[in-house]
Amino acid sequence: MAKRIGRRPGGQPTRQEIVESARAIFATKGFRGATVRAIAEAADVDPALVHHYFGTKEQLFAATLEFPQQALDRVIPTLTGPAEGLGERLTRAYLELWEDPETRSQMVIAMRTALSSDDAMARARPLIVDLLGQATTSGVPEPDPEKRFALAMAHLVGVAAVRHLSKVPPLRDMPLEELIARTAPAIQLDLTGDQAG
Amino acid sequence: MAKRIGRRPGGQPTRQEIVESARAIFATKGFRGATVRAIAEAADVDPALVHHYFGTKEQLFAATLEFPQQALDRVIPTLTGPAEGLGERLTRAYLELWEDPETRSQMVIAMRTALSSDDAMARARPLIVDLLGQATTSGVPEPDPEKRFALAMAHLVGVAAVRHLSKVPPLRDMPLEELIARTAPAIQLDLTGDQAG
Repeated sequence: MAKRIGRRPGGQPTRQEIVESARAIFATKGFRGATVRAIAEAADVDPALVHHYFGTKEQLFAATLEFPQQALDRVIPTLTGPAEGLGERLTRAYLELWEDPETRSQMVIAMRTALSSDDAMARARPLIVDLLGQATTSGVPEPDPEKRFALAMAHLVGVAAVRHLSKVPPLRDMPLEELIARTAPAIQLDLTGDQAG
Repeated sequence: MAKRIGRRPGGQPTRQEIVESARAIFATKGFRGATVRAIAEAADVDPALVHHYFGTKEQLFAATLEFPQQALDRVIPTLTGPAEGLGERLTRAYLELWEDPETRSQMVIAMRTALSSDDAMARARPLIVDLLGQATTSGVPEPDPEKRFALAMAHLVGVAAVRHLSKVPPLRDMPLEELIARTAPAIQLDLTGDQAG
């Protein structure tokens, strides 16, 4: 495809068109092989516009997954710091994301996509595996920190799904602080227990 | 609608037609108000045929929800018996349901329905609340046994969803026994811990 300087003449490229080009490039080249330059070329726009809209390549990839970047930015930092209180920090950060109506609608889309679209998950899986790997350099103890983190996140995903998607009364109606108090000890055990270690 | 003896002349009523009549009756009359006789009448069949296909009214209701009866039959009995080992019994019974390819396909349908269809959940919610109530006459300790059971099930739903629907590698590829060993302690804590008690 011919590269042009600046925006294409035929019209303003939309954010959505860049996301679609990015999906195509990530799908064929993989995350490492894909460059912002190649994505910009496929979308027929200047790379600076891609950076302007999306920031880094990681953030662009997250956008292709409809994976809320805000969720990552709030959840990942809770893994650092002392092992004591880890379960409570992670539980609070994740469940609070679901309480804000605007973030919640993004979380609902991401979760429904992750649980129902094999295509979307095929794209999302490498990013998720990469995220789980962040547990290895965090406060999550050895052995197998990424398995511990995966299990804790699966637990939290289940709680959020039953509260906000299925809306089953005892969890739907539970005050957030009670829900955190009831959930955090099990998440702490997932993350720091000596089971199967 | 006129009641007839035996099957209607126009053709063999299918199991699916009875399920659809049952959905309509449950939706208008509620679970208590609905009778097998009224459902049979709406489907234009003999009540005996409804019992033949579905057994009890509870089982018919479960069929309208695409809620796998087999899942209930295997999970609920694990709640009785000593509190020690409760988490391991429930975790094993539920996660084993997902390992058998035939049961798994039913579980996948039920879970995708529960997480994506507000209509289906509106129908399923009273049954789920009823099921959670069974925790109150089981080995799940006071206070709030139904909240404990709801939280444990939400955790398990999350683990199954991430393993079998999203297929995220550390959980997708984990041997079942390791998964049970890593999950059961947290489920035991959900069910018997003194958090928020």
